[in-house]
Amino acid sequence: MTIEEKIRRRLDNLTKPRGSLGRLEELAVAYGVARGTADLRLERKAIFVFCADHGVAAEGVSAYPREVTRQMVRNFVSGGAAINVLCRQYGIDAFIVDAGVDGDPEPGVIGRRVARGTRNFLHEPAMTAEQAAQAVAVGREMAARGGYDIVGTGEMGIGNTTAAAAVVSALTGRDAAEVVGRGTGIDDARWRHKVDVVRRALARHAPAATDPLGVLSAVGGFEIAAIAGLVLGAWERRVAVVVDGFIATAGALLAARLEPGTRAAMLFAHRSAEAGHGVALEALEASPLLDLGMRLGEGTGAALAIGLIESAVRLYREMATFDSAGVTSA
Amino acid sequence: MTIEEKIRRRLDNLTKPRGSLGRLEELAVAYGVARGTADLRLERKAIFVFCADHGVAAEGVSAYPREVTRQMVRNFVSGGAAINVLCRQYGIDAFIVDAGVDGDPEPGVIGRRVARGTRNFLHEPAMTAEQAAQAVAVGREMAARGGYDIVGTGEMGIGNTTAAAAVVSALTGRDAAEVVGRGTGIDDARWRHKVDVVRRALARHAPAATDPLGVLSAVGGFEIAAIAGLVLGAWERRVAVVVDGFIATAGALLAARLEPGTRAAMLFAHRSAEAGHGVALEALEASPLLDLGMRLGEGTGAALAIGLIESAVRLYREMATFDSAGVTSA
Repeated sequence: MTIEEKIRRRLDNLTKPRGSLGRLEELAVAYGVARGTADLRLERKAIFVFCADHGVAAEGVSAYPREVTRQMVRNFVSGGAAINVLCRQYGIDAFIVDAGVDGDPEPGVIGRRVARGTRNFLHEPAMTAEQAAQAVAVGREMAARGGYDIVGTGEMGIGNTTAAAAVVSALTGRDAAEVVGRGTGIDDARWRHKVDVVRRALARHAPAATDPLGVLSAVGGFEIAAIAGLVLGAWERRVAVVVDGFIATAGALLAARLEPGTRAAMLFAHRSAEAGHGVALEALEASPLLDLGMRLGEGTGAALAIGLIESAVRLYREMATFDSAGVTSA
Repeated sequence: MTIEEKIRRRLDNLTKPRGSLGRLEELAVAYGVARGTADLRLERKAIFVFCADHGVAAEGVSAYPREVTRQMVRNFVSGGAAINVLCRQYGIDAFIVDAGVDGDPEPGVIGRRVARGTRNFLHEPAMTAEQAAQAVAVGREMAARGGYDIVGTGEMGIGNTTAAAAVVSALTGRDAAEVVGRGTGIDDARWRHKVDVVRRALARHAPAATDPLGVLSAVGGFEIAAIAGLVLGAWERRVAVVVDGFIATAGALLAARLEPGTRAAMLFAHRSAEAGHGVALEALEASPLLDLGMRLGEGTGAALAIGLIESAVRLYREMATFDSAGVTSA
């Protein structure tokens, strides 16, 4: 019997009409497949918030100035950001990882800075091949940390919806206008400019869709690379990984192109309001759990989804069976 | 400044792009309006699982026999049902209320039995006007219990999707075929029979859509009445009430027809896979939070939604503002 069959057999014996827990039942299956076992346990939970700056922010593609990355890192450490609040509620350990922030190192942050931000990919490659490998390794290292059952992807970086859009456009062949969104909230004129920046950058570097590390080096970001690494590391260790929104899905898509097997480790948290997310999800044949119009990043959607995945696992473990409860089955 | 304006002003000052928490921001507003305050607190949470039997179950409209209602009441008391698992996870107090179960009273249950099930509404009214009032009063009494910030509606009763379909059809004027679903899982032939039972019952009693208590007496159920009462009581006390799935929404629709003001107290948990739920939600102009293909009842959708509502309230209360965190706003 496969793991999936074992899990479905138990689900069908629990005191409920068959299939009546809907996607929570599919979640239990997906979680078991990711973990490689039908003996589902979900106790240790973490979210890694990878933070980095982006050279392309100099092109005025964001509603916020570059220093907000550093300011938000401080906010994460103080516990005042949205991701902190949600991690407290759901019992998730939150780790803040500096993968490439510009500014003085912040106490309380895991310092793995590859550089003080990427270079401006409108004019030159965002990073070298060595830096790309180093940033991926940061994520892989985090996946090995602490023996977690499930890890969620978080990120912060002014300019990173531009980098994620460029990565998704390069990997899927879809036009920039289909993957560029409003980010933190830009107007029509700035959106057109952002589309133009992505289109020109891809024309300049022309990275091959078949070369994920080439795409990453040309137009990626250190936090996007680290997310790809976290996914790779989670898959290697049979840890389930919850993919948050647009930037995280760009990282997950990179991981899947590097190693198709990683898809089995991924659970998708929510459908972001960011335009390109649908394109990235489609490329991964993914249907996220939640659709709440969120577009904050940080791992906030992943935190909510971890709550639901925990529900699925608890129901699987703790519900009575028809036999044990003396309930007549249909 | 209205409560809504006060809540939105605070939301816009939190360290996140405006509106980027999507429906969680709308939830904070709706919760504050339900509570009548911008000082949001959500600590005490309860779900009331109203249980009752249905005379119409004798017509073979369910995949399960009538005694399953009683067996599931015992399962609730033992803590082995889905709703028990979810209430433990989310810190929700679960109360099991016997509003009209057939069988010996069960220890650990709040005994408010109106009768040993309704009568078979294919042949006679489900209940008398006095019984309808008594069952509504059961729910109202529960809303007054324990000083809760939020209460969720749960239910169990073999046959109750048939009663809910009849109530929704009578109140909205929509044909039985549009509101009758598969319940716990019936085949095509039994579904056609269930449609026929609802259609004939409504032809026999012809309750006026403008007379909610008349509809309830003719084709309702004791748990549906109690849910309507819980909503009325919650509204009177400024307690927020989370409406679960199809049966709960039928009860909420009764409450809204009895007292339109109650709509402001309601938050809608999830879109059930049960066919008639969309019709009932539309009548209340409601867009639920979750769409997970669930069709279990018991209040399981409400439990998950209470987790998300708590997230919205915690974010509102605990996040830093741009000023307090020293983050540059856009």
